[in-house]
Amino acid sequence: MSAGWFRRRFLPGGLLPAPGTPRPRASPVPYRRPRFLRGSGSGPGTADASRRPDSRPVRSPARGRSLPWNAGYAEIINAEKSEFNEDQAACGKLCIRRCEFGAEEDQEWVTLCPEEFLMGHYWALFDGHGGPAAAILAANTLHSCLRRQLEAVVEGMVATQPPMHLSGRCICPSDPQFVEEKGIRAEDLVIGALESAFQECDEVIGRELEASGQVGGCTALVAVSLQGKLYVANAGDSRAILVRRDEVRPLSSEFTPETERQRIQQLAFVYPELLAGEFTRLEFPRRLKGDDLGQKVLFRDHHMTGWSYKCVEKSDLKYPLIHGQGRQVSEWPHQESLLNCLLQRLGYWEHWPSRGAWETISSESWTQTFSSSPSCSLSHRLDLQVTVLDVDQLELQEEDVVVMATDGLWDVLSNEQVARLVRSFLPGNREDPHRFSELAQMLIHSTQGKDDSLTGERQVSYDDVSVFVIPLHSQGQGSSGH
Amino acid sequence: MSAGWFRRRFLPGGLLPAPGTPRPRASPVPYRRPRFLRGSGSGPGTADASRRPDSRPVRSPARGRSLPWNAGYAEIINAEKSEFNEDQAACGKLCIRRCEFGAEEDQEWVTLCPEEFLMGHYWALFDGHGGPAAAILAANTLHSCLRRQLEAVVEGMVATQPPMHLSGRCICPSDPQFVEEKGIRAEDLVIGALESAFQECDEVIGRELEASGQVGGCTALVAVSLQGKLYVANAGDSRAILVRRDEVRPLSSEFTPETERQRIQQLAFVYPELLAGEFTRLEFPRRLKGDDLGQKVLFRDHHMTGWSYKCVEKSDLKYPLIHGQGRQVSEWPHQESLLNCLLQRLGYWEHWPSRGAWETISSESWTQTFSSSPSCSLSHRLDLQVTVLDVDQLELQEEDVVVMATDGLWDVLSNEQVARLVRSFLPGNREDPHRFSELAQMLIHSTQGKDDSLTGERQVSYDDVSVFVIPLHSQGQGSSGH
Repeated sequence: MSAGWFRRRFLPGGLLPAPGTPRPRASPVPYRRPRFLRGSGSGPGTADASRRPDSRPVRSPARGRSLPWNAGYAEIINAEKSEFNEDQAACGKLCIRRCEFGAEEDQEWVTLCPEEFLMGHYWALFDGHGGPAAAILAANTLHSCLRRQLEAVVEGMVATQPPMHLSGRCICPSDPQFVEEKGIRAEDLVIGALESAFQECDEVIGRELEASGQVGGCTALVAVSLQGKLYVANAGDSRAILVRRDEVRPLSSEFTPETERQRIQQLAFVYPELLAGEFTRLEFPRRLKGDDLGQKVLFRDHHMTGWSYKCVEKSDLKYPLIHGQGRQVSEWPHQESLLNCLLQRLGYWEHWPSRGAWETISSESWTQTFSSSPSCSLSHRLDLQVTVLDVDQLELQEEDVVVMATDGLWDVLSNEQVARLVRSFLPGNREDPHRFSELAQMLIHSTQGKDDSLTGERQVSYDDVSVFVIPLHSQGQGSSGH
Repeated sequence: MSAGWFRRRFLPGGLLPAPGTPRPRASPVPYRRPRFLRGSGSGPGTADASRRPDSRPVRSPARGRSLPWNAGYAEIINAEKSEFNEDQAACGKLCIRRCEFGAEEDQEWVTLCPEEFLMGHYWALFDGHGGPAAAILAANTLHSCLRRQLEAVVEGMVATQPPMHLSGRCICPSDPQFVEEKGIRAEDLVIGALESAFQECDEVIGRELEASGQVGGCTALVAVSLQGKLYVANAGDSRAILVRRDEVRPLSSEFTPETERQRIQQLAFVYPELLAGEFTRLEFPRRLKGDDLGQKVLFRDHHMTGWSYKCVEKSDLKYPLIHGQGRQVSEWPHQESLLNCLLQRLGYWEHWPSRGAWETISSESWTQTFSSSPSCSLSHRLDLQVTVLDVDQLELQEEDVVVMATDGLWDVLSNEQVARLVRSFLPGNREDPHRFSELAQMLIHSTQGKDDSLTGERQVSYDDVSVFVIPLHSQGQGSSGH
């Protein structure tokens, strides 16, 4: 079997054509719900357009269909914010094959018996914006990119220490020492594979959207279990937390206007044409108005984490690039829309959310200007963040779970509120094999103001919400791919 | 008194000429040692060129001359690495005047009686590179910039909460709420003043160097006590730590190739012309050679925190932009010289150390290319880092001190080794009013292999070393300006 055969066998059909191959105009990405929802009353291709805000169904996998590690899942469509549910989800086994080395020129890929595979599992949430296409493409594609990236380095991953040369040859006697001094461990290869897979997937999405004439972006939150560790990779504003009896640990951190402010202001400082004469790059506690002219008001610029005062000039009255009234996660998506619009163009995950910025702000000329500055988007990508949880080192208890959810959940529930809901639900439901999906459903009900006994106040999410609950204690048991 | 009078009175002479004022070619910045060393046998203007590596004198302020808070100081010149001691130091009182508001047009600065000043103290270390000029200019200038920046916001600093409008006028009724929601506190104004002062000082240094035809850069580590808090601002690789009986707390973090790697690689990705055909932006565990060609070796690129493998091509054999064999602080300055050379050009603190990169690496064409891309240096500045220590909240003990030192100390002593030396010295020397300078001297002796009983091994620093030891317990007692 040749490397060419391998490529044809394992690469997703049509997504990575050989350079120069002419391609016909692709048809639009068809809408669908996650495959593992088949049989739950929400088949692929079913649009969820007809629903009333107060009677939207919460959907979970059909009873009898188990996800990896017996994880639970539930989702709800938004309250008529958009025609489709723009969240997407995927999960399954990751089967990593080994490649055998001959001479450099004729490396061959061989299929070994399953026992020699490195096995992992994969859960992913994508929150689409500006249409469902990017999230669907990501759900279809990212796991393939990741498997391919992992297979390319798997020899290094299973070694005690990744060798300088993947072949294991030692060209320089102190190579192991160089690797040791750089502190390179097997988990760095998995992190590198995740980073490369995101980049590859981002390129695929860009090509596919362009080919089919569609637009949009999505966030991505991915959990991968491999060799006793759980890797959580995040780009965007979804979130994963570890909930244990005595601990709530964030496993991801969101990209927010607060975390990206200086980068954005700096960009506007270097490329003032991006402001198109309509915006100011300075941040003020509120939008300024005529009465503020000539006054000294609080502000900060790109080089500052602190604050200072400046005398207000006319140009300071322009629409601020950085705008918002609070730090609360639940508030910023709606207030910081222009910044999000910028972030979409800047993101490492290039197809990052626009959050409806296009509709709410008349910034056409500005985004036009921005789009035509390719060096900006290249030089200011958002970093993908990868957190590693050493599951093997935890003294796991029956009720230890990872909760992954899109921002629709976190807009109305704090980490602590989610943890309280988890801890109150699980002990009373030990016998139900479907309990983690029941828990995921209960969390979503809590965002609909239907269970306010624990959250204390009635908060409602009108956004799409998707939730995975991954039990850690039963890892590897009762799991099956999809 | 007019604002103009104030400017003439308080701005350092000639450093900030009115725009458009023609200036004669300035004479070179004269070499000097810190003013508070007068009378200690190392007068200003004395070059320390004639010395043997093993008999370099350790210098401290003359007995009887006390620094703010009775802080100790000691310094040693490098072992013939350069003609001059390129470290500089400054300390003194910070007298912050208040400005009174009339109508916006005719604001007046008034000198109030000393009781109405806000009083603070200031200690600073600068580590020059490529010549002593930048460090001397910084030691002469930064405190003036800082005082000016603080005076501009002092009304906001002394309020319970900084007001939206410095005048205290409330134009929008919810202004206090906007400020509250942004979480803006008095300390943010001090941080902002430090950031603006660094930027202003950086501009002054740039102008002065250009005017006098000199070159070079410097790091800066500054501690400022104000309103019961200690602010530690850092740009470069000096370090400050808090040493208490049961605690060693870092108060700064160094900019290292490790912390700046991705930024640098990204820059080279966006502007490949910076590599001038001589360098590769990829990081490998060691420099590659011909035998590695065609092999798959460990590498990482700008978008990765993890590692992966790539097949070595001829272009990978070029000199790496990122190069180094270890993470130890004691090793990197010597190994990462090209990167440091880049950092110098990129830094927020623009005149950041070159570390002799110019001499050791033939990168003339590359730095030429770099220098001619102004947008690069603007868009990728290093951030100044400011740490706030709430001294009033500490239950202070007699032996609690802050140790500030240039990298010559930290190259050979760890935080813990310094803490052990501090704890072993102070209890036995309670009566000596000069004990903190004695301690600073002892720390420097420890870098010369003269006291290896505590460090366990004989490590020697051939670099300039400068150390402040600031006792926290006696704050405000026995202090005097210089």
